[in-house]
Amino acid sequence: MATVRLLSDAEAEANPAVKAVFDDIRATRKTDFINNFWRGLANDPVTLKRTWESLKAVTTGETALPPKVQEMIYIAVSTANACSYCIHSHTAAAKAKGMTAAEHSELLAIIGLAAQTNHLVTAMQLPVDETFQVET
Amino acid sequence: MATVRLLSDAEAEANPAVKAVFDDIRATRKTDFINNFWRGLANDPVTLKRTWESLKAVTTGETALPPKVQEMIYIAVSTANACSYCIHSHTAAAKAKGMTAAEHSELLAIIGLAAQTNHLVTAMQLPVDETFQVET
Amino acid sequence: MATVRLLSDAEAEANPAVKAVFDDIRATRKTDFINNFWRGLANDPVTLKRTWESLKAVTTGETALPPKVQEMIYIAVSTANACSYCIHSHTAAAKAKGMTAAEHSELLAIIGLAAQTNHLVTAMQLPVDETFQVET
Amino acid sequence: MATVRLLSDAEAEANPAVKAVFDDIRATRKTDFINNFWRGLANDPVTLKRTWESLKAVTTGETALPPKVQEMIYIAVSTANACSYCIHSHTAAAKAKGMTAAEHSELLAIIGLAAQTNHLVTAMQLPVDETFQVET
Amino acid sequence: MATVRLLSDAEAEANPAVKAVFDDIRATRKTDFINNFWRGLANDPVTLKRTWESLKAVTTGETALPPKVQEMIYIAVSTANACSYCIHSHTAAAKAKGMTAAEHSELLAIIGLAAQTNHLVTAMQLPVDETFQVET
Amino acid sequence: MATVRLLSDAEAEANPAVKAVFDDIRATRKTDFINNFWRGLANDPVTLKRTWESLKAVTTGETALPPKVQEMIYIAVSTANACSYCIHSHTAAAKAKGMTAAEHSELLAIIGLAAQTNHLVTAMQLPVDETFQVET
Repeated sequence: MATVRLLSDAEAEANPAVKAVFDDIRATRKTDFINNFWRGLANDPVTLKRTWESLKAVTTGETALPPKVQEMIYIAVSTANACSYCIHSHTAAAKAKGMTAAEHSELLAIIGLAAQTNHLVTAMQLPVDETFQVET
Repeated sequence: MATVRLLSDAEAEANPAVKAVFDDIRATRKTDFINNFWRGLANDPVTLKRTWESLKAVTTGETALPPKVQEMIYIAVSTANACSYCIHSHTAAAKAKGMTAAEHSELLAIIGLAAQTNHLVTAMQLPVDETFQVET
Repeated sequence: MATVRLLSDAEAEANPAVKAVFDDIRATRKTDFINNFWRGLANDPVTLKRTWESLKAVTTGETALPPKVQEMIYIAVSTANACSYCIHSHTAAAKAKGMTAAEHSELLAIIGLAAQTNHLVTAMQLPVDETFQVET
Repeated sequence: MATVRLLSDAEAEANPAVKAVFDDIRATRKTDFINNFWRGLANDPVTLKRTWESLKAVTTGETALPPKVQEMIYIAVSTANACSYCIHSHTAAAKAKGMTAAEHSELLAIIGLAAQTNHLVTAMQLPVDETFQVET
Repeated sequence: MATVRLLSDAEAEANPAVKAVFDDIRATRKTDFINNFWRGLANDPVTLKRTWESLKAVTTGETALPPKVQEMIYIAVSTANACSYCIHSHTAAAKAKGMTAAEHSELLAIIGLAAQTNHLVTAMQLPVDETFQVET
Repeated sequence: MATVRLLSDAEAEANPAVKAVFDDIRATRKTDFINNFWRGLANDPVTLKRTWESLKAVTTGETALPPKVQEMIYIAVSTANACSYCIHSHTAAAKAKGMTAAEHSELLAIIGLAAQTNHLVTAMQLPVDETFQVET
C-alpha cells in the first residue's frame, strides 16, 4: 500500500489538469502505459505537471548525453538513495534505451567501487588536494 | 586534519609494499602526482593494494563505458553519498577525460531530478509496477 | 520477518519492565494498539523505556510546534533516511493529527525540492555565503 | 572552491536568460542579495530557470503550510542528506521567517529522534503494521 | 524480482570462472549454501571474483577484530545505508559467529544513538574541536 | 560558524540545568574538557540532559561490548551518515579507549567493503534468502 492513492485511468480522465499531463506522457513516450509514479503524483496536479515538465525538459529533445547514459546516472543516484522503485523503473528504462549486459555489469561495478571509496575517504576525513581546487 | 596520517613520498619509498603500489599508480596514470586518497590508504598496504587493483581493473584497459561516463557515474554516487573529496577529485577527472561544460550541466540536472523523484517515490511508498519486474 | 522477535501481549505482560512501558504507551495514546516498533524494541526493556520516554518528552505535553507539524518533520527525515516503516507509521499519525491532503501534497513537494537542491548544492560544492554565517 | 564557477553580477547581467532569473529572484525576495546557489546554477540558464520557478511555485503565493514550517521541513531533509550549505541557508531563512529559538530546539530534537527511530526500525527490519496500510 | 538474473547451480557449473568462485566460497565457508548475493554477482564473473576475494581477504585468516565484531560493524553500515538484504544476511552471520542477544541489543542501541547524535551535530553544523584534530 | 551558539563555561555556569549536566559529564569522563557537541546542545537544556543521559546509559557502567568496540560501531554509523564532526570525535575516542592502528585499518576496510556490497545489493534489488528469514 502506498501512502497516497494511485489514480486510475478513469480518475485521471475526470480531472482535466491530470488528463493533460497523462496525455502528454503517452504522446511523448509513445505508449499507453502510465507507471505508478505519475498515478501517485496525480493527487497533486500542480506537482505532477511541474515534475513531468522538468523530466521532459532534461530527458527529451537534444541532450548532451545519450538517453542510455542518462538512465545509468539515474540508477546510480537511485541506488545511493536506496530507492527500490526507482532502481527497478530506471533499470528497465536503461535496458529499453540500449544498455547492454556488459554496460549494466560495469555500471554496478562502478557504483560499488564509488561507494567503497566514498566511505573510505569519509572515514579518513581527507583534505581535498590543491590540484582539485583550481579555479574552473 | 585527517583521522589518519597522509604518507609522504619518503615514507612511501621506505615501505616496499606501498612503493610498489605508488609506482604502479604513477606508471598507469602517467603522472608523478599521488593524491591524498592513496596517501591515507597507505597506512594499510594491504587495503591500499586491493583498492588500487580494484579501481585499475574497472577503469583501465577495455571498458564497456567511456572513461568520461565512468567518472560521471562516480560523481553521481559521490554526490548522493555526500563525499566532498570524491566530488572534487572525480569532477577534475571527468573534465580531464573530456566531460564538456554542457555534459557537466546535464549531469547535475539529472542528479538533481533523480534525487527529487527518489524522495517523492519514497515518501509515497509506491509499489513497483509489474512491468518493471519481468524476468531478466 | 524481522531480525528480532516481536513480543506478543502475553510476553509483554510477563515482563514487568516491558509491561510498564506498554501500559504507559496505551494510557498516553488512549488506545490499546501497540505497533510493531515497540514490540521489537521490547527485546531490550532498557532501550524500550529510554526510547519511549524520549519520544513522550518531545511529542506530548506543551510543544513548541503543533503535533501535526512534528509528524510532518518526522516524515521528512524518514523519507531522506529511506525508512519505509517510519514513513507509513508517521504518515498515518500525521493524518490522524489533522494533516490535510493539501498539506500532505505540499510536504511531498518540499521534500522533493529539498532533495533536488541538496544534491545540486553538493555536486557543486558551494561555499556557504557569509551572510548565512553570522553569529547566532 | 566550488566545482563550478560562481557567476558575478557582471556576468549575470551579460546573459539575458540569467539576468531575467536574477531579476525575478530580487523582485520576489525584495532584496539585492543573490546567494551562491543561484550563482552556481547560472552556468546552466535552463536549469537555473527551472529550479527557480519550481521553488517559487512551491514557496510563494498561497501555501498550505506557513513559510516558517516549509523552511523547517527543508532543514530536516537537508540534515538527513548532510548538505552543509543547505542547512546554513535554510536555518537563516527559517529564522528570518519567524522560527523561534524554542521551535528551532524542538526541530532539532525531532530530527534527532526521527534519525534514532529510523535506524532502530531499519536494523530490526520491522514489518509495517496492517493498520498503517489501510487504503487512503 | 531482482534487476539481474540469479544464477542457478547448473548455470554456475557451466561457467568455469563462476564455478571456481562458487567452489571457493563453499570450501571456505564449509557449506553448500550460496546466497543470492553471489548468484546475482555471477552475471559478471570478474566482479564476482574481485568481490569475493576482497571479502575473503578482510574477513578470513588472522583478523585484528573478532569475526563477530566485524559482522556487527557490517550491520551498522548496512543499517545507515538502508540495505535490507544486507541487514538480514549480516545479522544471521553475526548470530552464527556468536553475537549474543545482549550484544545485539547493545548494537542496536549504539546504532540508534549514533544516528541521533549524527543528525543533531549535522543540524547544528558544529566546528570540530581542536583537540580532535591533533596530528595522528 | 554553527547554526546555534556554543555556550561558554560562564554561560553554562549561569544556567543550573546546564551546569548540572556539564558537571556530570566532567565527573563521569574525569576531565574538564567539554566538547562542542554539548556546548551546542546546551541551548536546549532538556535535550542536553536527555541526550547525555542516553549516552551515559549505553556507554558507561557494565556494557555488553568493550568501549573500544562501541566507538568503532559509532565510527561506522557516522561514516555512512557522513558526519565529519562525529567521525573526528569518535575516532579520537576509540583511540583513547585502545583501538590499535591495525584495528583502525581493519575497521576502515570493513566499512569500505560493506558500503560496496550494500550498493551492489541495492542496485541488484536482491530478494532475501529464506535461510536469513528464520524466526528468531
